[in-house]
Amino acid sequence: MRNKGLIQVYTGDGKGKSTAAIGQAVRAVGHNFKVGFVSFFKDPDVFGYGEYESLQKLGIKIFLFARKHPHFYKEINLDEVREECLKGVDFIKELFQDESWDMLVLDEMNIAVRDGFLKEKEVFSLLEAKPERLELILTGRGATERIIKKADLVSEIKEVKHPYDQGIKGREGIEY
Amino acid sequence: MRNKGLIQVYTGDGKGKSTAAIGQAVRAVGHNFKVGFVSFFKDPDVFGYGEYESLQKLGIKIFLFARKHPHFYKEINLDEVREECLKGVDFIKELFQDESWDMLVLDEMNIAVRDGFLKEKEVFSLLEAKPERLELILTGRGATERIIKKADLVSEIKEVKHPYDQGIKGREGIEY
Repeated sequence: MRNKGLIQVYTGDGKGKSTAAIGQAVRAVGHNFKVGFVSFFKDPDVFGYGEYESLQKLGIKIFLFARKHPHFYKEINLDEVREECLKGVDFIKELFQDESWDMLVLDEMNIAVRDGFLKEKEVFSLLEAKPERLELILTGRGATERIIKKADLVSEIKEVKHPYDQGIKGREGIEY
Repeated sequence: MRNKGLIQVYTGDGKGKSTAAIGQAVRAVGHNFKVGFVSFFKDPDVFGYGEYESLQKLGIKIFLFARKHPHFYKEINLDEVREECLKGVDFIKELFQDESWDMLVLDEMNIAVRDGFLKEKEVFSLLEAKPERLELILTGRGATERIIKKADLVSEIKEVKHPYDQGIKGREGIEY
């Protein structure tokens, strides 16, 4: 049915990285792809389950790791965050064993490297282990040069203007 | 319930503009927003109804205008495309009269201006007529300076790397 799956990366400081991945997942599932959405550092207990419920309704499977980023939770033990991220990496490698997946989104995966919870080579090993037909999508600021080089499609989302600059805070249904 | 709605613009030459708007729509509907998705130059008879069916399943309303862009359909009469685009503008103004909408996406609206089917002031008049609580999202390459200036949030999606460069053509479920 499908050809070779590619590696897509959405990085940069602007708004639209995770939403682009959500939109890509929604488009793919509309074409009967089997899609999984693996998020790091997203805590729906705080930000609501809005987008996850929508994705689940469409048959997209959601997996959450390292929900609490230490930037927001000062009491979090950094070693535990690393452990959680490593669990995520192992879990993704397990998903790779199941050939029925057409697309996996690794939401905020780049952040895990940027913030030192994963080593670049640990994420890179996922790119190398990707099954041929799987479309793999990574999001998050700070994608490394090596990951960008390995990817087939890279979009850098630049912030031209953001309402935070007007003092408007993150809004329910918009930023989360 | 909600505060003031803002104007968001996703522009630039990279992949991720329409998918970011789709993702934003999916997130919003997950928070019980009433969301409409108005597309220009998208022809599901050719590219499939995949993403539109998914959005409709979630309760997002879809409206399509000027489905055939003359770039792909050489036989199309340019005056008819302009007429279709103007119908779209009038339709959006009608939607503005219904205060129950929380979010409207105007997908590829910037293209209508870039390619001369709408005058900048015709699109600008929509931004000026936006109901206060409505979140309005425009996508498409070539957003004009005036529209960028009026918007509250602008992300420029830059193409760092695209598989078209490897000779890989648009893929079902991914590019459309």
